Amino acid sequence: MNFQLSQPDTLLSAAIQHKIDRKTKPVGALGRLEALALQIALVQQTPAPELHQPHIVVFAGDHGAARAGVSAYPQDVTWQMVENFLAGGAAINVFSRQMGLGLSVVDAGVNHEFGKRPGLIDAKIGPGTASYIDRPAMTPAQRDAALERGRGIAHALAGNGCNCIGFGEMGIGNTASASLITHCLVGADHDAELYNVTGRGTGLDDAGLFRKRSLLAQALERGGRPSDPLAVLAEYGGFEIAMMAGAMLGAAEKRMLLLIDGFIVTSALLVAYAIDPRILAYCVFAHRSQEPGHRVQLDFLQVEPLMELDLRLGEGTGAALAFPLVQAAVNFLNEMASFESAGVSDQS
Amino acid sequence: MNFQLSQPDTLLSAAIQHKIDRKTKPVGALGRLEALALQIALVQQTPAPELHQPHIVVFAGDHGAARAGVSAYPQDVTWQMVENFLAGGAAINVFSRQMGLGLSVVDAGVNHEFGKRPGLIDAKIGPGTASYIDRPAMTPAQRDAALERGRGIAHALAGNGCNCIGFGEMGIGNTASASLITHCLVGADHDAELYNVTGRGTGLDDAGLFRKRSLLAQALERGGRPSDPLAVLAEYGGFEIAMMAGAMLGAAEKRMLLLIDGFIVTSALLVAYAIDPRILAYCVFAHRSQEPGHRVQLDFLQVEPLMELDLRLGEGTGAALAFPLVQAAVNFLNEMASFESAGVSDQS
Repeated sequence: MNFQLSQPDTLLSAAIQHKIDRKTKPVGALGRLEALALQIALVQQTPAPELHQPHIVVFAGDHGAARAGVSAYPQDVTWQMVENFLAGGAAINVFSRQMGLGLSVVDAGVNHEFGKRPGLIDAKIGPGTASYIDRPAMTPAQRDAALERGRGIAHALAGNGCNCIGFGEMGIGNTASASLITHCLVGADHDAELYNVTGRGTGLDDAGLFRKRSLLAQALERGGRPSDPLAVLAEYGGFEIAMMAGAMLGAAEKRMLLLIDGFIVTSALLVAYAIDPRILAYCVFAHRSQEPGHRVQLDFLQVEPLMELDLRLGEGTGAALAFPLVQAAVNFLNEMASFESAGVSDQS
Repeated sequence: MNFQLSQPDTLLSAAIQHKIDRKTKPVGALGRLEALALQIALVQQTPAPELHQPHIVVFAGDHGAARAGVSAYPQDVTWQMVENFLAGGAAINVFSRQMGLGLSVVDAGVNHEFGKRPGLIDAKIGPGTASYIDRPAMTPAQRDAALERGRGIAHALAGNGCNCIGFGEMGIGNTASASLITHCLVGADHDAELYNVTGRGTGLDDAGLFRKRSLLAQALERGGRPSDPLAVLAEYGGFEIAMMAGAMLGAAEKRMLLLIDGFIVTSALLVAYAIDPRILAYCVFAHRSQEPGHRVQLDFLQVEPLMELDLRLGEGTGAALAFPLVQAAVNFLNEMASFESAGVSDQS
């Protein structure tokens, strides 16, 4: 698979910045929203960008390692939560409804048969990954299929007129997979030692955290610390993480805006970034999660998220909560009066 | 005037917290939103709170000291920006529309005659304060009238069914007034020396900032550093700041939720807090502004705002931008499924 990303042309930068600076406010007074407006305008290559059919996609998958005890919750919670998404009762449903966001759930590899269901995209690679403690989590063929299906999902959304996609995930055990991916792809220069990037996930106690770290150290002893993103995915990935990485690259191919959620979503982005770093130009980082490895990832990417609300839920909830700020950046750029149009005196 | 505030009863705390903890998410996983949900539920004394007719009120007033050169902009910008608000072209208009918030502008004391205008509340105390460099900014009678009119505005909103009010302001020179108020009411124990609480406002350069600090030091030499909030208002206040303080206390009397914006709004809250500290239970702090004194105020009040976006615009823009988070806290509490209702397995 050969993803075709391009860096947004910056020829329009000066004109867009001038438009921002002539709005009826002191120069720079809208802070982070001004940089965000410039970014979105460049992604869309217009001083009057618009967000169309913004959409959250939640990728769900199961992890073989979950049965070895890397999570505080039983593996069945993955499919039960998918049912909760389909019934509209989860946090991401509440926030998507509030923010006017479309919502789709992708079965990337849940250990459950859902059948055909409205709102569910069946892209199942298998009933969960193998346990990376014993063997590679997936075959190269599975990995490539996951990447390709993710790309297809993003392209289909773009084809329906969506130009802003928020990424979310569900998968019992997937913070553990994200820790291993982060450890491999961030590398030793950035404090990505296993201890620093492995946290409590959904709420492990001290004993549980110790067990999780021990199991992940075992996995590393078996699989090593590859730096090639495709090798890392095959060794330690989840089907939902691999599919998200493909969807991210596919969305950037279509010049969509990508809303990046927390630790697990950012681990998928690390894979996508290692494949093509130009993806960063399309990414808005929604929040800094409470999971300690997220800070390591964000520092490595040298990005600052919009919010810090101590979230650690996943599902794309941070992306949904940050969406009004993204919309606000677009709206001030399009709707605010200029000093000239409003007849307001400029700085003396 | 005798404001009648009460501390919200905490009898319901355990029941509300139980409701939060049984939602389909790990305990605490919604971070700051969970504490916010608890706060709002206690303010409204129900485990199923609702936000009705949320409204931004922008208080505008002129400052005599502006003509001495404490701002980068000419005083006329105050009334010009009020016209911009009334025409719908300012940032607060854009964000209020986006977030579904009502918007009223209050002429608390602008140096301009607007006449009767839709969306404008005429509560004018006078055509701007006196310059505190030479004499007290306002008389005790003016101050009391401003507080009382502010209270009346909040009570009128409550009478119309609004239970959530966001505070904003406009007034060339009002960061200077806010610096003096903060210096007096925060006090020496909390780094509120004039140097620390005086910033660039709308965008002073180094020479302008030096001049602003010199003028404020002159004012302090004349008026001293009173600690009584009513004395501070009379010496250094603005009509819009005094009226906001009255509106805040009036809103808390009616058990409304108060959305606190940036440095100037928080200076009004310092006055209200000195009058009755129970007001804090009703306050949600929207953001930490770029104006350096805002951090000093928030540290003094021992509160952590929801966002930090490097805003320094005022108008209530931070309050409007934070509103979706406040609504999200209410919505997850009311709409999310519980482990029981969704059939999801709890932590093992």
